[in-house]
Amino acid sequence: MSNDVQFASRRTIEQVEEGTELAPKFDEHGLIPCVTTAANSGEVLMLGYMNDEALKRTITTGEAHYWSRSRKVLWHKGATSGLVQRVVELRIDDDQDAVWLRVEIPGDASCHVGYRSCFYRSIPMGGDSMHALKFEESEKAFDPKKVYGDAPNPTQL
Amino acid sequence: MSNDVQFASRRTIEQVEEGTELAPKFDEHGLIPCVTTAANSGEVLMLGYMNDEALKRTITTGEAHYWSRSRKVLWHKGATSGLVQRVVELRIDDDQDAVWLRVEIPGDASCHVGYRSCFYRSIPMGGDSMHALKFEESEKAFDPKKVYGDAPNPTQL
Repeated sequence: MSNDVQFASRRTIEQVEEGTELAPKFDEHGLIPCVTTAANSGEVLMLGYMNDEALKRTITTGEAHYWSRSRKVLWHKGATSGLVQRVVELRIDDDQDAVWLRVEIPGDASCHVGYRSCFYRSIPMGGDSMHALKFEESEKAFDPKKVYGDAPNPTQL
Repeated sequence: MSNDVQFASRRTIEQVEEGTELAPKFDEHGLIPCVTTAANSGEVLMLGYMNDEALKRTITTGEAHYWSRSRKVLWHKGATSGLVQRVVELRIDDDQDAVWLRVEIPGDASCHVGYRSCFYRSIPMGGDSMHALKFEESEKAFDPKKVYGDAPNPTQL
């Protein structure tokens, strides 16, 4: 089904910026970054990456697909945890090298660490602080051990 | 002043995910992606990139700095257009390889094409459409020719 989606070639700046042709630019790894926000709150949940196939499957199925850079596989978000992301809206930016996905999630949680958003810590501003991160979510939305079991942690040092 | 900000080394997954040390991961180009949203509306304005110095200057000055990948220079957003982004909040994600910046902007516009958000077009969903992009902003917030003059367009094909 994802064969039904065709991407245009990138010919001119005007075509890419002001036109209506979908002509995404994938980076040297074949990926395009995707900002995913909660449709109800506007909160940024995660920054993921899509390859050609993940973007096409997201468009055709209405469920978020990414490329897992740590596992190196097409990643249907929620296939393990049940926290599938239903697409409310998909946008693309001016030069078509980034997409913005607005989603609804059952349970309203997205992060593999167990928090609602992956961005659960803030960085204090100013020139003279110690910049200790501050937790902005007071508790986890789910227990990652129960949801993921012994699956390897995707975080890479 | 940006020398006042020190980044920690990345030692363990627990330290990076559950700790309070700021230990950002820059990619092979020395960059970390930054999602920038409007603090008042939650709208995603742009996806930019910061190098070490841009992230430190953003923290110390409270104004968004990026690395311009097209011009290959440190980029104090708004230095040309006047559309400086004042930082309301800066967050970092679970594995500390992406940041989320919530900003206020005079004039409420961010995109070099003249629109409020860089994400001014949506991609229609479904498997059998032509996927012509749909404009979600009806008019430009400013005239880029007046603001940028003859400066080269940053979009790369």
